[in-house]
Amino acid sequence: MKKHTVLLSLTLLLLSFQSKSQFNIQKVTNSFELQNAISKVKAGDVIIMANGIWKDVNIKFIGKGTKENPITLTGETAGKVTIEGASDLKLSGEYLIIKDLHFKNGYTPSSTVIQFGIDSKTFANHSRVTNCVIENFTQPNREVSDHWVELWGRYNQLDHCNLIGKSNFGPTVRVFLKGNEHINNYHKIVYNHFGPRPRKGGPHGETIQIGDSGTSMAPSYTSVANNFFDRCNGEVEIISNKSNYNEFRNNIFFESEGSLVLRHGNYCTIDGNIFIGNEKSEFMGGIRVINTGHWITNNYFYNIKGKGFRSALAVMNGIPKSPLNRYMQVTDVVVANNTFIDCISPFQFSVGVNIDKKDVLPPSEIRSERPERMIMANNLIYNQTPDNYPIVAYDKVDGVLFKNNFTNAINKTDIANTGLVTTDFQINKAADYLYIPTKNQDDVYKGFDFDKIATDLFGTSRKTQNSVGAINLPVKPNTTLINKTLYGTIWFVKEAPVYVTKTHHVTNNNELIKKLKIAHSGDILILKAGVYKLDASLVINKNITIISKDKKRKAELQFEGDKAAFDMHPKGVLYLENIVLKGNKSQCAFASLEKNMSQAFNLFVKNTEISDFKTVLMVYKASFADTISFDNSNIKNCSSGIVLNTETDAGGDYNAEFVYITNSKFDNIESTVLDYYRGGYDESTIGGNLILKNNTFTNCGKAEKSKILIQNQGIVNVDFSNNTFKNNPIDTIAILWGEKGQKPVNNTVINSGEIKIEQNLKQKLMY
Amino acid sequence: MKKHTVLLSLTLLLLSFQSKSQFNIQKVTNSFELQNAISKVKAGDVIIMANGIWKDVNIKFIGKGTKENPITLTGETAGKVTIEGASDLKLSGEYLIIKDLHFKNGYTPSSTVIQFGIDSKTFANHSRVTNCVIENFTQPNREVSDHWVELWGRYNQLDHCNLIGKSNFGPTVRVFLKGNEHINNYHKIVYNHFGPRPRKGGPHGETIQIGDSGTSMAPSYTSVANNFFDRCNGEVEIISNKSNYNEFRNNIFFESEGSLVLRHGNYCTIDGNIFIGNEKSEFMGGIRVINTGHWITNNYFYNIKGKGFRSALAVMNGIPKSPLNRYMQVTDVVVANNTFIDCISPFQFSVGVNIDKKDVLPPSEIRSERPERMIMANNLIYNQTPDNYPIVAYDKVDGVLFKNNFTNAINKTDIANTGLVTTDFQINKAADYLYIPTKNQDDVYKGFDFDKIATDLFGTSRKTQNSVGAINLPVKPNTTLINKTLYGTIWFVKEAPVYVTKTHHVTNNNELIKKLKIAHSGDILILKAGVYKLDASLVINKNITIISKDKKRKAELQFEGDKAAFDMHPKGVLYLENIVLKGNKSQCAFASLEKNMSQAFNLFVKNTEISDFKTVLMVYKASFADTISFDNSNIKNCSSGIVLNTETDAGGDYNAEFVYITNSKFDNIESTVLDYYRGGYDESTIGGNLILKNNTFTNCGKAEKSKILIQNQGIVNVDFSNNTFKNNPIDTIAILWGEKGQKPVNNTVINSGEIKIEQNLKQKLMY
Repeated sequence: MKKHTVLLSLTLLLLSFQSKSQFNIQKVTNSFELQNAISKVKAGDVIIMANGIWKDVNIKFIGKGTKENPITLTGETAGKVTIEGASDLKLSGEYLIIKDLHFKNGYTPSSTVIQFGIDSKTFANHSRVTNCVIENFTQPNREVSDHWVELWGRYNQLDHCNLIGKSNFGPTVRVFLKGNEHINNYHKIVYNHFGPRPRKGGPHGETIQIGDSGTSMAPSYTSVANNFFDRCNGEVEIISNKSNYNEFRNNIFFESEGSLVLRHGNYCTIDGNIFIGNEKSEFMGGIRVINTGHWITNNYFYNIKGKGFRSALAVMNGIPKSPLNRYMQVTDVVVANNTFIDCISPFQFSVGVNIDKKDVLPPSEIRSERPERMIMANNLIYNQTPDNYPIVAYDKVDGVLFKNNFTNAINKTDIANTGLVTTDFQINKAADYLYIPTKNQDDVYKGFDFDKIATDLFGTSRKTQNSVGAINLPVKPNTTLINKTLYGTIWFVKEAPVYVTKTHHVTNNNELIKKLKIAHSGDILILKAGVYKLDASLVINKNITIISKDKKRKAELQFEGDKAAFDMHPKGVLYLENIVLKGNKSQCAFASLEKNMSQAFNLFVKNTEISDFKTVLMVYKASFADTISFDNSNIKNCSSGIVLNTETDAGGDYNAEFVYITNSKFDNIESTVLDYYRGGYDESTIGGNLILKNNTFTNCGKAEKSKILIQNQGIVNVDFSNNTFKNNPIDTIAILWGEKGQKPVNNTVINSGEIKIEQNLKQKLMY
Repeated sequence: MKKHTVLLSLTLLLLSFQSKSQFNIQKVTNSFELQNAISKVKAGDVIIMANGIWKDVNIKFIGKGTKENPITLTGETAGKVTIEGASDLKLSGEYLIIKDLHFKNGYTPSSTVIQFGIDSKTFANHSRVTNCVIENFTQPNREVSDHWVELWGRYNQLDHCNLIGKSNFGPTVRVFLKGNEHINNYHKIVYNHFGPRPRKGGPHGETIQIGDSGTSMAPSYTSVANNFFDRCNGEVEIISNKSNYNEFRNNIFFESEGSLVLRHGNYCTIDGNIFIGNEKSEFMGGIRVINTGHWITNNYFYNIKGKGFRSALAVMNGIPKSPLNRYMQVTDVVVANNTFIDCISPFQFSVGVNIDKKDVLPPSEIRSERPERMIMANNLIYNQTPDNYPIVAYDKVDGVLFKNNFTNAINKTDIANTGLVTTDFQINKAADYLYIPTKNQDDVYKGFDFDKIATDLFGTSRKTQNSVGAINLPVKPNTTLINKTLYGTIWFVKEAPVYVTKTHHVTNNNELIKKLKIAHSGDILILKAGVYKLDASLVINKNITIISKDKKRKAELQFEGDKAAFDMHPKGVLYLENIVLKGNKSQCAFASLEKNMSQAFNLFVKNTEISDFKTVLMVYKASFADTISFDNSNIKNCSSGIVLNTETDAGGDYNAEFVYITNSKFDNIESTVLDYYRGGYDESTIGGNLILKNNTFTNCGKAEKSKILIQNQGIVNVDFSNNTFKNNPIDTIAILWGEKGQKPVNNTVINSGEIKIEQNLKQKLMY
């Protein structure tokens, strides 16, 4: 026996020696070496990219590994290998692994950063990208579209990566199904940390899109599981599902302004996901349902305050015989064993119904088909402040079977009276965001195939204990809802270090220019009273607050340069308070860059006087402001006002997400005071928010050809209240959009034209 | 050891005794006993319906069998248990078997004859209908729609049945997918003998339909395999696939006027089927392709002469962003290893393109999207008479990859020049309809997933030998293409016995009436010269020939009754030759029944003189003639002519499939001579065939309000040639349909208005 053991050991040793010796492990230090190494690579080989900055590299990683012996391309030390400049990486072949790379300080010169394929004939299967970071690797021009990761082929995996800060057009991750080689792909997108992705304004800001309408009949079987979607605010669709049989499991959607949208394709599984909203935001949604055969189970919704498209569960109406790229009817969908804690009216049906628009839209746009053969069962609703209207129905609800749903409040709607039962129960906080009932509610409905809902949110079997809602009791001790260490790479620092704001005292113009330059993002410049003459623009490319030391003796900034007082750069955030700004009638007070506004800017103006500029705010095409706010300020003697009208492609885009104009006075603005524009009709992407409140407008608009004082064409959300319009020589103060519920409230109009309401705006269809 | 054996034997015996004793085998003799037996049935039980006629029975067969112990409902002796009258059978439960029943002499009072379900909540799984016959169990009113077999639930099977002679509206077999309980159904429709199914005229005459457009996104997985489709002529679609992942394998489509149509749904497999056409018919087609991802392999096409929609392989153009119920683009379809023997232009692409109709049709009807990412590879074409135009393209062919297709003729088209190779090869007849090449053509293209084409038409592995076309050599000795004994029941006599025609000599009117009554279908009545006065209609409810004994001295039939000279009943076939027919100006010469025309009639008139009728031929709503022929006859002094215009529902229906009017003279027909009508626009169902040739029309139409002499609105195929129109006081002789290639050829028009062509007919869209 002993002899045998020795022999075996020897053999193993030999084998191990052999297997090691036959694989080539090679470190490369530049692009040439790298491509040379790749050209010779064979199964089992490892190519190591040396630590350092790799600039302007276009890697084509082509090789044929095997299941047992994949080919690896890795950074020498995770976090120490950065790929910068005009760089990208395409892979093609079998069993390839990419890991430990950090893309930053650049953008792709092609249409993808990482692509599981080189062209339509050459792509990767059984390959994996792991432990990589793509950080702010965004196009300088927001309107140049790209994808950070494209999946082609089959059986590929993206895991433990961080994808942060994509601000240009195009979904962050895109799965393609164009061709038989790419269907039934069983890709895995798992354990990644997505976001934050900033608001984009308009469509094309998804974090993940799987397929498209043209391939929406294809079986995909992509798994999106155990990812953390961290403030993915790109657009209304965080995930846009556009193919069949995909699975979305155990993901966390954290304060993300959007929904998981089943846009096209059928028979998807949405199980065990967590949607966490925020009291202050109506933008954070849950799941929006279109099409057939989805199973939505074991999901946990907390604090979702969205309505309509953005409600916790938004079930849409379909278009009869819908065109391929529009809205199919919801049929055969099962929503079971979900828990809704502190969500307002979480069940919303026939969202998007627009039968009343049948005179202005073609029949192929009319969403009149209500959900059919849908089952809502065993769901649990709890609201601390009882919600008597847990269901909102925009049309009849006659195709939905409600069974054994429970709520702690009285359901005052006339829907689901027997299927949504009021019952007295309590919840306890078990961890951050996690609230669990104090006892199981065992009266569950057992529908067709319901035995396939085998476990609960935490993976506990439902066989012996089966409770209504997403959670079976008992929950294991120390259960948490969020464990951020599971997602993305370990090495990448996800949160910026806490910065302690510094203040800089400024007494003259030179100091102002100098201190603005050296200030750290977040700092405050405090200006002594006096006049500051400036002959060039102040560049705002970080978060800066400029205030007067003495509120009562405002510092006065006189601008004599020829462009703008403040140049708003990407990421620039300017808080201006208690300042007097004066121009020479030829410049803008504030302007974005004319190009390369890769990221959004923010502008907050308060208690400030602005006068004698050509334009108050000029925002150029492809520029985007997250928030623009003028509060308690006086603006006068300018040729034109706030110009946010350069997105004229009718693609649903616009120049600013939020515009607040409050408590301010506008006097002698010669043309339109505000021109805030969104073009293109697409009800599924929502945006533009205007709060115009408590302002006074006098003597404005006299040179305005349109004879309209405030233009807000296509902007979806408008609060237009408590303003005073006096002696403005125009015909129309504003045209509000009736269909969107816009109406003037408590405005005073003296010698200033009228406020009109147009019920159905005529717009160019986007699709 | 011995002891153990004994014990084991005893146990087995006991078990077997027990298992037998616990099953109830019960014979029932009437409906009451049957329903009583069913109400008590349990797993393993057998209910036997006693031999004899069961009239007006509505069986609800409800039970819960198991895989090991199904519940059986069987006829006592196959072929001796007939279910007649207003009868039907619905089953619900698990593991049920129905066998040995014969439905005839009746029709269902509900909407199905056999239904795997009772209502939308109650249906059957794992159940089987076998060895049954449904024979001419057709609704009296053809326009009452029903299905003979409806499949609901999952894992059900229809096998070894004969379904013959359905002539009313509605597919013979229908699979439903409406609800999660019915998807992924894995039904098997196998070893059945379908047909003959007579021409229906217009749509809704499919033999099998799987799903519908509304559920076309559902995964179905129905298998239609090893069936014999025997002259299934109901409509252009023999099988209408409308769901996903269905399989059509090893079926024989024998002289069936239609195609296997992939109407909706995707990713179907069509493998190893045999399509046999007929030199004389352009109606027999092959496979019509729409949608995505189908694999069409190992099929054998013989003598398919169809064109366009009915060609051997018809690949359609799609509508951009098509509505759900219209035409999706063809993408990702693979057509490989098929054999086409003596088929004319077997490959037809962009069938249905109608870009030229964009001014008269809405955009949602314009089929402008050509096939994309389609592969045509390893197909074999052989034509005895070389076919230099094997490909017909109605649009560009830019999305199809042609690889290693072979033909014995020179391809004079400019399509697929490199992918369709001319090669000199021979074929030998191996069996009826089976022609095989004399040697293998081994140069095969190996595309993505082509290794899944694992066998050839006859199940021979392609691993060691892989040849272009459907057949690998060598073929086993004595291979036949058709073995009819495999299909349907064994006991049912499929072919009518050969009948030897009898002749009956007739000398007077009483004899005529009497002998017509007693004559067997197929008989001939020979009339002596002379006058036959008849005061009631002659009923034609079988195949009857009436001729004059002496061609030169025609028998003269004078009708004085008040309806019609000849009452055409269902299945009535009248050959009238060398006869003089006279009316009294108040009746029809020929008329269908006013209702209950359950089956088609045929009328052949030759060398006959017809005069003094109110109407020559009157066909009532829901009546259908397969063929109407007037040849070499004189028709005069009638108020109106041939009336085939009662299908006015705009549903694509019409009153006669073929209308031949040839070598005849029409004189003094006061209104329209022929009114042959089809309403409703649906290009996918084709029909109405008019041959109007070598006739003379004089003095006709003087009382016609429309001022049109011959009306053929909506009739698709028209030959309008060599006619003479003289002194007809009308404006328009006829309006021909330009789009369908209709044009007048060599007609002589004297003082008779004009023949018009309307390029694009304005019609009501059917969908």
